[in-house]
Amino acid sequence: MRSDVAPGDVRAQLPAQPPEEPEPLSAVLSDLDRVIVPGLTQWQHPGFFGYFPAGTSGPSALAELATAGLGGQGMLWSTSPAATELETHVLDWLAELLGLPARFRGRGVIQDTASSATLCALLAARERAAAGGRELTVMASSEAHSALDKAVAVAGLEREAIVRVPVDARQRLDPAALADLLAAQDGPVFLVATAGTTSTGAFDPLDAIAAAVADRDVWLHVDGAWAGTAAVCPELRWVGEGLGAADSYVTNPHKWLLTAIDCSALWVADPTWLERALTVTPEYLRNAASDSGAVIDYRDWQIGLGRRFRALKLWFVLRLIGAEGLRAHVRRHVALAQRLAARVDDHPRLHLAAPAELALVCVTHAEGDAATQRLLEAINADPQLLVTHTRVDGRLVLRVAIGGARTTERHVDHLWQVLARAA
Amino acid sequence: MRSDVAPGDVRAQLPAQPPEEPEPLSAVLSDLDRVIVPGLTQWQHPGFFGYFPAGTSGPSALAELATAGLGGQGMLWSTSPAATELETHVLDWLAELLGLPARFRGRGVIQDTASSATLCALLAARERAAAGGRELTVMASSEAHSALDKAVAVAGLEREAIVRVPVDARQRLDPAALADLLAAQDGPVFLVATAGTTSTGAFDPLDAIAAAVADRDVWLHVDGAWAGTAAVCPELRWVGEGLGAADSYVTNPHKWLLTAIDCSALWVADPTWLERALTVTPEYLRNAASDSGAVIDYRDWQIGLGRRFRALKLWFVLRLIGAEGLRAHVRRHVALAQRLAARVDDHPRLHLAAPAELALVCVTHAEGDAATQRLLEAINADPQLLVTHTRVDGRLVLRVAIGGARTTERHVDHLWQVLARAA
Repeated sequence: MRSDVAPGDVRAQLPAQPPEEPEPLSAVLSDLDRVIVPGLTQWQHPGFFGYFPAGTSGPSALAELATAGLGGQGMLWSTSPAATELETHVLDWLAELLGLPARFRGRGVIQDTASSATLCALLAARERAAAGGRELTVMASSEAHSALDKAVAVAGLEREAIVRVPVDARQRLDPAALADLLAAQDGPVFLVATAGTTSTGAFDPLDAIAAAVADRDVWLHVDGAWAGTAAVCPELRWVGEGLGAADSYVTNPHKWLLTAIDCSALWVADPTWLERALTVTPEYLRNAASDSGAVIDYRDWQIGLGRRFRALKLWFVLRLIGAEGLRAHVRRHVALAQRLAARVDDHPRLHLAAPAELALVCVTHAEGDAATQRLLEAINADPQLLVTHTRVDGRLVLRVAIGGARTTERHVDHLWQVLARAA
Repeated sequence: MRSDVAPGDVRAQLPAQPPEEPEPLSAVLSDLDRVIVPGLTQWQHPGFFGYFPAGTSGPSALAELATAGLGGQGMLWSTSPAATELETHVLDWLAELLGLPARFRGRGVIQDTASSATLCALLAARERAAAGGRELTVMASSEAHSALDKAVAVAGLEREAIVRVPVDARQRLDPAALADLLAAQDGPVFLVATAGTTSTGAFDPLDAIAAAVADRDVWLHVDGAWAGTAAVCPELRWVGEGLGAADSYVTNPHKWLLTAIDCSALWVADPTWLERALTVTPEYLRNAASDSGAVIDYRDWQIGLGRRFRALKLWFVLRLIGAEGLRAHVRRHVALAQRLAARVDDHPRLHLAAPAELALVCVTHAEGDAATQRLLEAINADPQLLVTHTRVDGRLVLRVAIGGARTTERHVDHLWQVLARAA
């Protein structure tokens, strides 16, 4: 499913000039099938185990059709009241399904990506710090998503100034080390904790972190971009334990919850600072509803001004698939991953590079990086499989992220056969 | 077409809890019609003359369905080669249709909104300034879009520090005043010029601005968000005259070019600075194609990491509507607006608050703000009409932005009748 095109291959098949006259739909669909699709990596292929999954589904696609057809723009409540209210509402539904703390109710917003969500949280924290006349210090473990580094750069802070909190042997932020760093810290802090790191799926200990930040001037942002939606299953509610102390929380329905990108859910406990950081009101955007203070204008909760009606797809997904359907989806992947992890663990020449959390399995070869590299190449040489890699404590690690809507036991078994043979 | 819901009305009709079991599609579609659509302002209504148009079309909607169905993610070339290459290609097509300078070829990227595009340009300019060890000064007229103020705030610069270049009586940036400001300025400058301001459609004189910035350390960003796509018509190519000196340029197919939001086209003459400002590469995103330097990784040209396959809809629109179809679309609106403007100009109690540029008509009542406010209220009391307002030199102004796909002479005539009667 990995496209084998070389750079430039796709463009070489496209006419240099745009058409003057309309072309028939059949010509466009034919080119879509002939030129575009073969040039795409097939994220929906059941043997796609790379990165994290990019969820989509019939309900999500249908809603995108409706969103484009309605053609509205929800920058202000007044420019599309139902778009704003549905967004607040479905994020309350999602908060309910995930068991999020009450402080997040009515305070959710859909961002395009978790990167933007983290940037918004950082800007809100900076605004709060600035209101007190203080500079903000950013803290996170080395395992926090690179979106933090990017957000820091965008915000004009020094990337190098991020204070890196040490991690334990399982790549989890060390709360004792955090407490020491905070004790030595005078001013306000923006702290990112991760519930399910991208590299290995590690969970920073949120309860202990909450204890460490108590009574301190810390904006705690929790990044559960991938893992957070697993909490739709009551038995996996632990992924969000400790969120009661979080000032903001992000998780992406567009990863593991069958909703097409872009749908990243951000909640903020107190939107005041977000709004102060992001509100700019020229005359042509003034209106009675905004002036009344009785509505949310989501343009003030995001980087851009214009906005798509993204809540519609989450609403379609939640209603047409239902909570039980979403739980079954997540449980199936967790079971497949745990079965694969057990096989890896039993194999004499394969190791789990990290505990297999949820549906992410990290594998190394006992003989080291060169052998692991060969595993990686053997798997990716199979046109039915795709995995990616990372490094853990300097060692090369093969990542198997399970989460495709059509991924079944058969596909994971095939991966295992290729892996075991290559090992 | 303006929804008459009060704050909370839509939410009150939605169940407090998400469903456990899947619901039938008919129930969701029924609620869409019954609860959601009546709560939306109908941007596609032919009598919608508010803000700027939010383009959409059958081809655009169909492509969104395909994008959601394909379910890919184009953060890197390697994760969806055809998505990246089609994006570069259709932006070259669009550059060709708009007659953009050769320096922008192969250097386009789709952003969600012009706000993000302007932020990216600002960050690139700051990176270039920082490479020379200098602080960046931001300059623009008071008529530049508020997205600049927001970008400046996001980037951590002082909003109040924007140097405002005076405008002439027609709200156009004064190039002589700019030259004076630049002469008094020692360090690097990020200058925003606008081709078609949001408030009144004023065009900053790009040729004269180009002359003023020549040989100076200025990053010239041109914002043609609304008006820029009008250059698909050869006789309207003047909207982009002087772009040869621009370092970056943004125009939104999702406004006046029948492509659903989000599709904002940004070109940068030298992507080096953009990439330096926005590239952060953790191990799990490394890949051979990126390392080769032979491909564009669009995650390095935008704020977020993940990205939707938005080029598909622009491709569908350009092919299924064709350049001639797009030209007819723009010409029709310009003709309707110029006809309306002539009637306003002839009316004894109505004035044009600014020259009617392209398809934007700005109207005041001769008797002042209170009378203009009554005009505004009379028009918006009609369920078939929606207009917005602005202020020009302190005076209240009624804005009529024409651009709906279904807007015809009949709808503009109806607006005129209501306006003339109220006047």
